[in-house]
Amino acid sequence: MKISFKNDYSEGAHPNILQALVNYNEDQQPGYGEDFYSVKAKEIIKSKLKSEKSEIFFVSGGTQANLIVISSLLKPYQAVISATSGHILNNETGAIEATGHKVLGIETADGKLCPSDIIPVLEGHKNVPHQVMPKLVYISNSTELGTIYQLEELQELSKFCKENKLILFMDGARLAQALTSEINDLKFEQLADLTDVFYIGGTKNGALLGEGIVINNPNLQEDFAFNIKQKGALLAKGRVLGIQFLELFKDDLYFELGKNANVQAMKIKKFMTENEIQFLSDTSTNQIFPILENSVREKLSEHFEFYVWQKIDETQSAIRLITSWNTKDFMTDEFINSLYEIIRK
Amino acid sequence: MKISFKNDYSEGAHPNILQALVNYNEDQQPGYGEDFYSVKAKEIIKSKLKSEKSEIFFVSGGTQANLIVISSLLKPYQAVISATSGHILNNETGAIEATGHKVLGIETADGKLCPSDIIPVLEGHKNVPHQVMPKLVYISNSTELGTIYQLEELQELSKFCKENKLILFMDGARLAQALTSEINDLKFEQLADLTDVFYIGGTKNGALLGEGIVINNPNLQEDFAFNIKQKGALLAKGRVLGIQFLELFKDDLYFELGKNANVQAMKIKKFMTENEIQFLSDTSTNQIFPILENSVREKLSEHFEFYVWQKIDETQSAIRLITSWNTKDFMTDEFINSLYEIIRK
Amino acid sequence: MKISFKNDYSEGAHPNILQALVNYNEDQQPGYGEDFYSVKAKEIIKSKLKSEKSEIFFVSGGTQANLIVISSLLKPYQAVISATSGHILNNETGAIEATGHKVLGIETADGKLCPSDIIPVLEGHKNVPHQVMPKLVYISNSTELGTIYQLEELQELSKFCKENKLILFMDGARLAQALTSEINDLKFEQLADLTDVFYIGGTKNGALLGEGIVINNPNLQEDFAFNIKQKGALLAKGRVLGIQFLELFKDDLYFELGKNANVQAMKIKKFMTENEIQFLSDTSTNQIFPILENSVREKLSEHFEFYVWQKIDETQSAIRLITSWNTKDFMTDEFINSLYEIIRK
Amino acid sequence: MKISFKNDYSEGAHPNILQALVNYNEDQQPGYGEDFYSVKAKEIIKSKLKSEKSEIFFVSGGTQANLIVISSLLKPYQAVISATSGHILNNETGAIEATGHKVLGIETADGKLCPSDIIPVLEGHKNVPHQVMPKLVYISNSTELGTIYQLEELQELSKFCKENKLILFMDGARLAQALTSEINDLKFEQLADLTDVFYIGGTKNGALLGEGIVINNPNLQEDFAFNIKQKGALLAKGRVLGIQFLELFKDDLYFELGKNANVQAMKIKKFMTENEIQFLSDTSTNQIFPILENSVREKLSEHFEFYVWQKIDETQSAIRLITSWNTKDFMTDEFINSLYEIIRK
Repeated sequence: MKISFKNDYSEGAHPNILQALVNYNEDQQPGYGEDFYSVKAKEIIKSKLKSEKSEIFFVSGGTQANLIVISSLLKPYQAVISATSGHILNNETGAIEATGHKVLGIETADGKLCPSDIIPVLEGHKNVPHQVMPKLVYISNSTELGTIYQLEELQELSKFCKENKLILFMDGARLAQALTSEINDLKFEQLADLTDVFYIGGTKNGALLGEGIVINNPNLQEDFAFNIKQKGALLAKGRVLGIQFLELFKDDLYFELGKNANVQAMKIKKFMTENEIQFLSDTSTNQIFPILENSVREKLSEHFEFYVWQKIDETQSAIRLITSWNTKDFMTDEFINSLYEIIRK
Repeated sequence: MKISFKNDYSEGAHPNILQALVNYNEDQQPGYGEDFYSVKAKEIIKSKLKSEKSEIFFVSGGTQANLIVISSLLKPYQAVISATSGHILNNETGAIEATGHKVLGIETADGKLCPSDIIPVLEGHKNVPHQVMPKLVYISNSTELGTIYQLEELQELSKFCKENKLILFMDGARLAQALTSEINDLKFEQLADLTDVFYIGGTKNGALLGEGIVINNPNLQEDFAFNIKQKGALLAKGRVLGIQFLELFKDDLYFELGKNANVQAMKIKKFMTENEIQFLSDTSTNQIFPILENSVREKLSEHFEFYVWQKIDETQSAIRLITSWNTKDFMTDEFINSLYEIIRK
Repeated sequence: MKISFKNDYSEGAHPNILQALVNYNEDQQPGYGEDFYSVKAKEIIKSKLKSEKSEIFFVSGGTQANLIVISSLLKPYQAVISATSGHILNNETGAIEATGHKVLGIETADGKLCPSDIIPVLEGHKNVPHQVMPKLVYISNSTELGTIYQLEELQELSKFCKENKLILFMDGARLAQALTSEINDLKFEQLADLTDVFYIGGTKNGALLGEGIVINNPNLQEDFAFNIKQKGALLAKGRVLGIQFLELFKDDLYFELGKNANVQAMKIKKFMTENEIQFLSDTSTNQIFPILENSVREKLSEHFEFYVWQKIDETQSAIRLITSWNTKDFMTDEFINSLYEIIRK
Repeated sequence: MKISFKNDYSEGAHPNILQALVNYNEDQQPGYGEDFYSVKAKEIIKSKLKSEKSEIFFVSGGTQANLIVISSLLKPYQAVISATSGHILNNETGAIEATGHKVLGIETADGKLCPSDIIPVLEGHKNVPHQVMPKLVYISNSTELGTIYQLEELQELSKFCKENKLILFMDGARLAQALTSEINDLKFEQLADLTDVFYIGGTKNGALLGEGIVINNPNLQEDFAFNIKQKGALLAKGRVLGIQFLELFKDDLYFELGKNANVQAMKIKKFMTENEIQFLSDTSTNQIFPILENSVREKLSEHFEFYVWQKIDETQSAIRLITSWNTKDFMTDEFINSLYEIIRK
């Protein structure tokens, strides 16, 4: 069986999480998120955020989180602004549009949005009432291209959104990886003030499933649970999510797992850089996009699984390598050794 | 801590299921339901259904299953027919309407629909195009009132639906309990021909989460996966569902668990009947609705948790007792003993 | 050709309206409701309402008005309360549900809602977040059964809605007929305080098409025009609506036409009452529901068109007779004479 | 008062239409499009199309036509392909997305789509089920940029759509202008075979309001009227639309009016071309986009109304001039004379 670097959801859950599910299994608990574990997990997360005003809701997956948050916060004629690389724009089967809202795409080089990207969109939507009203800015951290927002970038974007009455929503499917990147200077607790809503990705960081939606803006919290139920996202056994987030946050497991994913990718990146391999973009998290000779790529693929991301020219392509919370040293060692064997010839 | 008879999702999962999640945890698998376990579980279920034509899709919960199935199968102007006791009508926060479809309610005594219930609805919707077109019949088995469909009843309903070009959709959140009721004469495999679509409830029968949607009518299968993704129901780690259903169906665990739930409820029912306690309705599954003197009810509630279902008069109320796959003999024994102590005085 | 009492939209428009369309035809005007006539008509209506705070929007028809108002004012999980006789419930092809909202029906004898009708619905929707939240009360005046709200009834309902944070929305497709009924004591201007939103029906009272939505509650006015455009209801030549409402309201044509409709129906009612014909309900507007012997009905139908409304028994049925702004004396005279000829034999 | 070249819906209706509304006003007719005039108008249009299989439905406006057609024909996960200049993409307040469907935009120079534009979109949507399925191709003729489809272009596109199981839908808000352009070689009747659905724009060609949706593909006709009613587009007095289309099509008024619009614009274009004024795009219908010195533009705007379309550089901008069915010779003469006076200095 080949080692896979195709994604960060290839395995089950971190063993601590499975053990907790086993330990608490026989305990009778209320359903629908009222269980002890969910309540406790929310308390701990709020305490780490140092934000009493924030409200937390656990759901199963990222598309679900995105569609519930966006459809709950917007009026029918309001639209979303997203980078064209945004997950909601091209990888969620029109989930946002299916709730009635247009997503306005902005081309970017690095998957990140800044005020100067957004201004032309606002300017271009002044023909009231013949156009949608841009109202919510959707960003991902880390982005779908593996890049992250630095503190100052997020502060500027946040300020811009407040000034323009835009809701700022951060998709944190890979938040752990962003916050533990070696170049990151943004603290978890700063998200409570800098975003209106964000979510804490569990699925891609050691949970079986689960994302924790955090609504920081009290004006946006009212009746949110109705939307979760209406969209079919309220698990009867809410404990399944509560136990997992409790395990991830009671100590710092969440961040340790994110860090491992990054460290493993950076190990490969370092080796490649030293060997003068170029990258499609400069990333600091668990996704890297090296450009390889086709012959090199083909030999690597005999032993490893990964996606070919983009054809560069007749002889080269960029591939995407993703490491995860569960990538072991031996796996990246093996990859590096194989690559070394291939390119030294 | 009181023993709870409030619902059938108070605990975690059957130990075999947890063990399987642990056993297969480190295995790297494709995401989004393409994993080995999901594929295998579907094969086994189809083989038990003796229905090669059926297609199976796993999702997280019942409301999710209901809204995806219904919104996928109907055109914008088509409506659902349901008993007013139907879960979609009053307990899912308008999830069906949120996808654009009206639910037409029919009052019934026992929560079941038969052709003579439906005919007046069809007759009353002939004012084309000023009214919705009734197109899908939603039934639950067992029903929300604990009753079940006998083979002949389902055959008649199925025939009627085919004759009237209505889609027949069975909510099987408690299918295991229906099929293992002591009075049941309907076989699992007969559902493949008698319904267009049904689902196999996991959440209320030993799984952490999970419902298996079975589409028997090939005309309704096309592109169904798009709808699952669009509604945010496609788990990245589809293995979580696959492993559970594999465990439930590789032997007959699914039906054993359903049977235990029924046996425990029937034990209480028998004792009550012998002691001349009346019931709101005559059920044969894991839900019973005994009518108790208020004083009796209050004393019971000191030791047990349950819902007061309906006030009968100044001195009596019906309560709802639900047993589950995980209800142990000692729990129902304790309940019976307590009740005996209370009423013999 | 038979005289038709089937509905109040059988003819074109009042001649003054057509003449105005001809007179102003060559005038170049801005589109989308910014034309001089629309602006002027709104001013006049606001002045008659004595309500500077109200905002007015013209759309083409009643179903359109209903779906735009309701979908604009409700959040996704909020629902509508309506009498089961309400037009939105059974005669608009699920238009409200198609925008995502459940309509909760209440059985009534006379098509009118009062607080005691609504209380049980509110009481029955306390299972947060598993049920929709009732938020908007939809009433019609006159109702679909021809009855009207007296001032005191509307005051009570309005007070109840404010106390319970419910939006009160009046469908005024036949508002002119309600306000000119011989038993009416409600003034047009009182609607500005007693309802959050209502609309002024033009289509059934002399216009070619057109309903004037009046939003009295300033909190509900923001950005309303976006919703009109999004639902396809913003006419490029908004002047078509503006000119018609200007004509209807610059003097009191609107109320004169409503009165004529009522007077003609009451003339028939009086004759029938004197001849001891019974009615299905006691109405004071342009709809009456007399119960006739089948033989009488059949003879009448040789010369007049009308709907058979409800079978009473083997020998009798109620019919619905509708008169209109354009019903002439000779038409009702002819009907009365024919009836006289039939029953005197 | 300035002469306006801002749009083609500044005036009321062609006098023949108003006269017909007056003539038939007192006639009692069935409602909801069952009237004699609607039936007759449909017959005539079908006869001119030489297409017995086509079905015709009249609605009020273009946005309404677009949203009803598209939402009726697509399944929830299917998407629309449109040029980014398409009216549905940027000028209808997200009306299509509000019905649940994504619109995929394609940048074009001339507002027209050809197979080579569409192929990359199809190629880029192969990640089943994580992306929407492109299913309907939306084109406008004439386009929003004033260009038209030549017969061969439409034949190629039509063939491509059939081969790829794509629905071809033509927005004909300005169909009359397209078909009477001096360079047009497409016949009205050819639309019956070359498109699945198109509509005949009345609002911008002499009607008060009204678009005639023509569904040529019998597979797409079933139950279409339900969708019209559900979206609030079924006028009670359908005669208002029927009478207008009867008047437009009983002879060839529809095409004469379109031709006048074109002739007037081409007169201005000719003068400008002779005077070496450049254009933003080369159009042959009633929209022209000349590039003027700012000083020239400002002087013109003292006497005429028009939109500034696009800034070219510091000294020049393109303006949009629209002529209409009702543009008189003296209006364009006056414009040409003014321009002559300005530029000869």
